Amino acid sequence: MKAEIIAVGTEMLMGQIVNTNAPFIARQLNELGIEHYYETVVGDNPERLVELSQIAESRSDMIIYSGGIGPTQDDLTKQVIAEYLNEELIYDQECLEQIKQYYQDRHQSMSSNNLQMALTFKNGQSLKNETGQACGSLIHKNGCLYVFLPGFPDELEPMFINEVKPYLFEHLSNKQVLASRFLNFFGIGEAALTSRLEDLIAKQSNPTIAPYASKSVVTLRLTAQGENHAVTDKLLDQTQEEILALVGDYYYGSGYNYLPMDALFDYLNQEGKTIAFAESLTGGLAAHLLVNHEGSSKIFKGSTVSYSEYAKAHVIGVSQATLDQEGMVSEACARQMAELTCSNYGADYAISFTGVAGPDKMEGQEVGTVYCGFASRGQSTQVKRYQINGNRSAIRLKVIYQAVLDFIQEKA
Amino acid sequence: MKAEIIAVGTEMLMGQIVNTNAPFIARQLNELGIEHYYETVVGDNPERLVELSQIAESRSDMIIYSGGIGPTQDDLTKQVIAEYLNEELIYDQECLEQIKQYYQDRHQSMSSNNLQMALTFKNGQSLKNETGQACGSLIHKNGCLYVFLPGFPDELEPMFINEVKPYLFEHLSNKQVLASRFLNFFGIGEAALTSRLEDLIAKQSNPTIAPYASKSVVTLRLTAQGENHAVTDKLLDQTQEEILALVGDYYYGSGYNYLPMDALFDYLNQEGKTIAFAESLTGGLAAHLLVNHEGSSKIFKGSTVSYSEYAKAHVIGVSQATLDQEGMVSEACARQMAELTCSNYGADYAISFTGVAGPDKMEGQEVGTVYCGFASRGQSTQVKRYQINGNRSAIRLKVIYQAVLDFIQEKA
Repeated sequence: MKAEIIAVGTEMLMGQIVNTNAPFIARQLNELGIEHYYETVVGDNPERLVELSQIAESRSDMIIYSGGIGPTQDDLTKQVIAEYLNEELIYDQECLEQIKQYYQDRHQSMSSNNLQMALTFKNGQSLKNETGQACGSLIHKNGCLYVFLPGFPDELEPMFINEVKPYLFEHLSNKQVLASRFLNFFGIGEAALTSRLEDLIAKQSNPTIAPYASKSVVTLRLTAQGENHAVTDKLLDQTQEEILALVGDYYYGSGYNYLPMDALFDYLNQEGKTIAFAESLTGGLAAHLLVNHEGSSKIFKGSTVSYSEYAKAHVIGVSQATLDQEGMVSEACARQMAELTCSNYGADYAISFTGVAGPDKMEGQEVGTVYCGFASRGQSTQVKRYQINGNRSAIRLKVIYQAVLDFIQEKA
Repeated sequence: MKAEIIAVGTEMLMGQIVNTNAPFIARQLNELGIEHYYETVVGDNPERLVELSQIAESRSDMIIYSGGIGPTQDDLTKQVIAEYLNEELIYDQECLEQIKQYYQDRHQSMSSNNLQMALTFKNGQSLKNETGQACGSLIHKNGCLYVFLPGFPDELEPMFINEVKPYLFEHLSNKQVLASRFLNFFGIGEAALTSRLEDLIAKQSNPTIAPYASKSVVTLRLTAQGENHAVTDKLLDQTQEEILALVGDYYYGSGYNYLPMDALFDYLNQEGKTIAFAESLTGGLAAHLLVNHEGSSKIFKGSTVSYSEYAKAHVIGVSQATLDQEGMVSEACARQMAELTCSNYGADYAISFTGVAGPDKMEGQEVGTVYCGFASRGQSTQVKRYQINGNRSAIRLKVIYQAVLDFIQEKA
């Protein structure tokens, strides 16, 4: 089966919106084992939408449209394709009631345009929208499957996962089940990781192993197929074990988009412990990443962003002798920053970051040199020196990831 | 003239990379007044690349390819299209020397594949790559212009701006010049802003006025055409004046991607003053946004991320009486946080942020309630109460923007 994606919306052609739906759908199609060779963007223009659909039909078995099913006058994807296919649109009654209720609850008047969001193909099937108002729809015609999804990623993504994916899998796979697992690695590049796993990847077909890299992290997605979830779980467990035997040193956890700060959050949450940071070159980023988690107030006490020597001395309390004799980018400074911050904030643990983010050297130290202190209440403090590659923002992110993973490994 | 964009790369079809080149090029084409109706993504596959090029030729006068001009074996865009067009590729000597020099300087051996990055159309024109190795190229054939650009945005964007855009403008515009200006607004939505400017936008054709919204900010891009830059400057000045007469209250500065924190940075830099933050609900984000500026160490002293009551009392020094009687989300707490932080860090100014980011109420206060204290060394402290809409991360960002702009307005 060959699929292709047509994203509809003039705002994309104007460059105002980045098409993140296509990569999302692409990843989903990969997991389903559906081939996918083309992605197209077109404006809110009926003629061009029909013309593109004709091209797509001639080379693919499934067309996935995103966008153009909302309430405005230029939202015409379903209507244009219905006319083109000579198929009737009807109102999905459940969706219609929800739209009416929405406006009633808010005491807002509803324009007739809003009702078009409930349109669905009479000879097709509706797709429930859990996070918005416009219903999706799909229809088979002339050997091609047409799927209509909303343009907003917050609506499209759950609709694809909860409605389209199970539909496709049932129609594709002879009732087999499909399961994915994401293994996350830090401290090794994608090329190095895959070259270590070369033999394993070559011999493996179920699960399939797909690597990808983003935000300084490398992820392997394993996807297994089988009669039921007990079978797929066993296949995934076996392959995971083989992978970790080869590159387990760099593994820090599993999960989609599971980043090192998630691992720190989970570790502290599980242990019921609290942490504080002392941040110099990281400038508040460590705190910001942790605070992004709902519920972080249970484990996070705070951070002192000591971006000046004055702040290191007067807010954190690093001794002037240390600053004068050893400098700000030093083992001694990192040690005091961590220890004092641990007690200042009354935290169980503290991690300090002091170093050179660039673009210039500092105190004679190379860009990318960072000292991190690891303090624990009532235990001796450790300090590590890192040498990190990259530009200012990459150095900040990588040293935070490295330090929190070293912290967890040390403690766990 | 009609253009279209073909992005080449299997990694996009795999969903591993988001195609940000298409929106970038789209915005550039809009500025040049070049129509643009289609964007397509295709994998590293010669047959499909030719097939798409044929479709594109039939409906457009210019095809812009991004990707597939690097050193790997699947980078074949120039080669495939050269063969298809029956045109010869030759080495660009300057580019070739640079590639050789690059490897020589690093004492690395160079594979023959690296040389293909210097390929250019014999009957076309090379496009200089200032930030990478692969040269771009363009060629006119059969009434169509083919443009070949790198896939990395860091290489594509400067190549488009510095090489392609002047070429297109010269070939399109009868030697007129084109100039853009970006006016930035905060505190008003895109719909409200454009409805206030409705008449102005309707009557205006030179400059054109294009609104777009991103990161809680609304930007108007004015683009003027004229015989020379004195003419375009005058046109832009006039239109800017008319716009600011209507919505000047929300205007905070001009420049591409110029955000409120840039305005704070510029203001403090110009005045030679320093600032510190006390951050509760913003969790280090204010510090992080400021530190993103190179040179921020001159104006930024630091931030105390007091994410716990303990930190507010023990690190900042807010009195326990205030915390007990008024609470953390209160005018009195914001006031003390700002004043104490100003003196703790020895800064000229301090801004404090305390409030409710959600998802739950705190101390009986609604989600989105935030108190900000504004302290200045030797002057009385002001406190403002804001009520901000949005989710956790939107509330954080918006209150920081609102507070720093209010700070600048107060001071300037």
